[in-house]
Order: sequence, then structure tokens, then C-alpha cells
Amino acid sequence: MHQLVEQIANQDIRALARAITFVENDSIEKLQIMQDAYSIKKNGMYIGLTGSPGAGKSSLVNRLISQIRTEGKTVAVIAVDPTSPFSGGSLLGDRVRMNEHFTDDGVFIRSMATRGSLGGLARATKDALRLCDAFGFDVIIVETVGVGQSELDIMKIVDTTAVVLTPNSGDVLQIFKAGIMEIADLFVINKADLPGVGKLKAMLRELIHMTKQDRYQPQIVKTITTENEGIEALWEKLKEHHAYVYASSEGKKRLEEQRKLEVLELIRDEIWRDVYQYVQSHPDFSSNLTNTDPYNLASSLYMKWKKEGR
Amino acid sequence: MHQLVEQIANQDIRALARAITFVENDSIEKLQIMQDAYSIKKNGMYIGLTGSPGAGKSSLVNRLISQIRTEGKTVAVIAVDPTSPFSGGSLLGDRVRMNEHFTDDGVFIRSMATRGSLGGLARATKDALRLCDAFGFDVIIVETVGVGQSELDIMKIVDTTAVVLTPNSGDVLQIFKAGIMEIADLFVINKADLPGVGKLKAMLRELIHMTKQDRYQPQIVKTITTENEGIEALWEKLKEHHAYVYASSEGKKRLEEQRKLEVLELIRDEIWRDVYQYVQSHPDFSSNLTNTDPYNLASSLYMKWKKEGR
Repeated sequence: MHQLVEQIANQDIRALARAITFVENDSIEKLQIMQDAYSIKKNGMYIGLTGSPGAGKSSLVNRLISQIRTEGKTVAVIAVDPTSPFSGGSLLGDRVRMNEHFTDDGVFIRSMATRGSLGGLARATKDALRLCDAFGFDVIIVETVGVGQSELDIMKIVDTTAVVLTPNSGDVLQIFKAGIMEIADLFVINKADLPGVGKLKAMLRELIHMTKQDRYQPQIVKTITTENEGIEALWEKLKEHHAYVYASSEGKKRLEEQRKLEVLELIRDEIWRDVYQYVQSHPDFSSNLTNTDPYNLASSLYMKWKKEGR
Repeated sequence: MHQLVEQIANQDIRALARAITFVENDSIEKLQIMQDAYSIKKNGMYIGLTGSPGAGKSSLVNRLISQIRTEGKTVAVIAVDPTSPFSGGSLLGDRVRMNEHFTDDGVFIRSMATRGSLGGLARATKDALRLCDAFGFDVIIVETVGVGQSELDIMKIVDTTAVVLTPNSGDVLQIFKAGIMEIADLFVINKADLPGVGKLKAMLRELIHMTKQDRYQPQIVKTITTENEGIEALWEKLKEHHAYVYASSEGKKRLEEQRKLEVLELIRDEIWRDVYQYVQSHPDFSSNLTNTDPYNLASSLYMKWKKEGR
């Protein structure tokens, strides 16, 4: 077993942080680490939280952590920074949380950022969730600013995805357009002390009715983070959906599809690693390419890799 | 030569639209189409425009089209919709443009959306730009909402990337953090009739000074789309940078790196297409996987493909 994973099994939190850095940087040891980590995985509850910048996700997660801690459960949070020039907020959010839960050994918080790694952010984040699971955290939360496909992809590993909205934020139509309804298991109307809550709730109900027929009907929870209102209800709804996923045939189907997707992703990453190294060191690739047809060169290099590259 | 490309060579605009759909859907014929298209490519000017939602990119591009048309040059615009639940605007933007340039044969506008295609949006967009080039458009503009890595990747095919900002939008630090300085060749301060222009310009100057030493110094252009102010200056600056790219050693190096990246992407997509089909039809993949270690299964399936899969 990889030394880092042995240390993780022994509750070495620094080893967990190091292992996450390994997957973030797409280290060559990654697959070995993840295979070993999977062999000691527990049954952590995987929760995803997404929503627009400014929806108050960080503070909401902060409150949720405290709520979960009252049950004595441990919590790991992976905060994903999509490295978007226009996403905003995430760094500050982490700092806020760090201050409050810094001294609590039952809470682990880590941010991840796109490094243009081969596998990409979504893949690295999924591995990070599994590493936290292997460590033994009871609840593992991934928080993303839902600003791109890769952020949505992250949600394809969690058991339950909560979409955080605010009144009058005008997100609803965008949600419908982006097909985020597909991944939404629960809607949180945060900042529910602002005007427009009733209208938003009605629109959500309609969207749910239109898109979720014969499927799990996402609940709608209202929260006011500043007042710590609705946090307990949110936690209950999260547990409710989690139980549904593991009890229902719809849930099992979802887990099965997630697993298949994950296997495909992992294979793609492995291939990419192989081919990347082969091509980078190939003479055809080193010469002046500016006036070369990239499509022809790609085909010929692929053919050559197929012949020699293994 | 592929029939669609023959039709494109004969200025059949419907064939261009169909070919773009082929690459968007990652059709099996894609590589053939693109090889043929590359063989008839002209020397179109590739421009990228990115910026936060609400920066007014669509209207700006709309004005820019009219400006370019005054020189009799033809323009193709690929508007990328990152399928983000929170990006906003893009659909409306297209409609606005369509109305104004609908009847102008010298203008082609197409939106592209993430379809979760294997190659991904960035790859399909680059192919679409090359198809427009093969058709013979003089200027090819790709407009993206800069909300994610894949949107930034798109800029790695254009000759010139303009980053659109607005006063007091608070984007500047995010830009720095996201490393978008790396891809910015020109900054556009749009809505320059709003307060805060001077401050934004000063901050940009500082960022440029900090990050672009011994490299091309991005210019800053102020525009007021509603007044059609600064559009001509913007067009001049775009041409200025374009000339620099093809004249300077820094520019040649950039084109060379872009080409290498593109070849790597194309190879990855081709392999992935092969492996994907192999894995999808493999018995190990069809059985119940929910309790299977995805990391082990991925390794073993990849090994099997390497042995049998060709």
C-alpha cells in the first residue's frame, strides 16, 4: 500500500492534504494512491453544493458544518475554485470558514483550483472526495461555483446535489437552460429574508413539475444564513435524499451511471498520460509546425503510437 | 475531398453550417472534414473576445462587425455558450445580432454550446473557426463568456485575444488570479461612460507592467457601444496586434505553441473515440459496477484495449 495511504489510514491529516496535492498535480503515482485509498474507503456521505457567485454558499456551508458537528459527525469540505476570472468569492469564503472551524479536528477544509492538469479539475476533485472518504470523514461536501461544464461534472460523483439560489437573482431560467435540473436533488433558497422568495419558490415548483416527472421530486428549503435559519431543515433534507439514493432503484441507477462515467474518465486520463509523453518526445512533433496541417499530423502520430507507442 | 468541404469551397453557407454541426457533435467524419477543410484554408484573421457576463460583449461584437464591414471584409462570429447555469445573456446576444446582420451575406453568426462531446467545446470551436476560414471569411471572431477553463482554452487558437471589462465590475483582481493576463493581448474598457474608468485603466496598466515585461504590452481601448464610440480604434488595435503576431518572434513562438497544443488535443480525441467504443461494448463494463473499484477497472480495461483494442 502506498505510504501516503497507510498514513491516511492512520488518521494522518497531513498525509491527506499531501495526497490531495498529488491528485491535483496529476502525479504519476495518482492511480496507485487512489486504488489503495479505494481499498480502505468508508461509507462517507457525498454532498454537492453549487450555485451562482454571491448566493452565499460559503457561509451556508459554514453553518452546515456546525449543524453536522452537533451530531458528532466529522466533515470534509472541498471548495472548488474554477479559476475563472469572473467567478469571484471563493478565496474569501475559505478564509471565513477557516477562522471558524480552524481548531476543530473534526473538520477538514481544502480548496482546489484548476491547474490545467490532464485529468482536469473535476477528476481531481472526485479523487479528493474519495481520499477524504478513505480518511474516514462522515460527510464530504464539495462546493463549486456553478459556472462551467467542469463544475457541473463534479456533481456526477456526489450522492446529493443541492443548488443554492437567492431571490430575484434571475438564475432560474439559466438553470433550466443549462439543464442543471438534471443534477439538482434539492433547492436551497438562501437569503430568504430578501423579497421575491414566494415568486422564486413558485417558479422552482413549476420547473420541478415540468422536468422531474416520475422521478425524485427535489425539495425546496429556505435558509437565512445570517440568522442560522433553515440550516437544520437543510441537513434533514440532505439526509432524506441520501437515504433515498441508496434505497431506491432510481438512486441505484444513478450510482451505476456515475461509476461508469468515472471509469471512462479514468481511462481517458491514463491514455492521455501515455500519448502525451510519446508525442512530446517524437521527432515529428519537435520540428517547426506552424505551417503543418495539425489534423494530418495528429492522425499520423496516433497511427505511429498505435504501432510503437506501447 | 469530403462533399461538405467541396460545397464550402463553393461558398455554400448551408454546407458550412452543416459542417460545424458535424464537429460540434463530434461526428466520426470530423477528422476527414477538417483535413480537407485545412487543405483549402485561407488566411483569415482569428480574433477572440472574452469577458464577464454583462460586459456587453455581444453588442460590442455587433458594432465591430459593422466596423469591419465598412472595409468590405467578411466576418464570421462563433458565439460560445458555456452552458453555464449562471453565465447569462448569450442567447439574447445572438438574437440581437441576428436582427441587425441577418440580411448581410458577408456576415455569418453561429452559436455553439457544450454538448459534452468527447473533444469538448474548445476543440469543436477551434474546428468551427477553421471551417469559417476555409469558407473564406476575412475575419473570424470567437466570443466566449470567460467563465471556465474550457472557455479560456478556446483562446489558444486565435491570433489576438481581447478581454472586455467594465468600470467597477471588480474583475481585475479575478483576472490576475486566473492568469488571464497570459492570454490577454488587448483590453477593452466597455461602457466607458460609467464612473471608474480611470481607476480601472490605472489598475490594468499596473497589471500589464507586472506581468508582461519583455513581452507585447497589451493596449487598452475605451468603448461606449451605445454611442458607437471607440469601435474604430478597437478595430485598429486588433489589426495592429495581428500584424505583430505574424511579424515578431514572440508571435511566431505563440503560433508554434498553439499548433502543438492543437495536435495533442486532436490525438487525444482520436484515441478517446477508439477506446470509448471499445470500453462501452466490453463485458467488464456492462456488469454491475456500483461496488467495483473504478481505479482498478479503469487500469485493467485500458490494458485490455492496449492488447486487443486495435
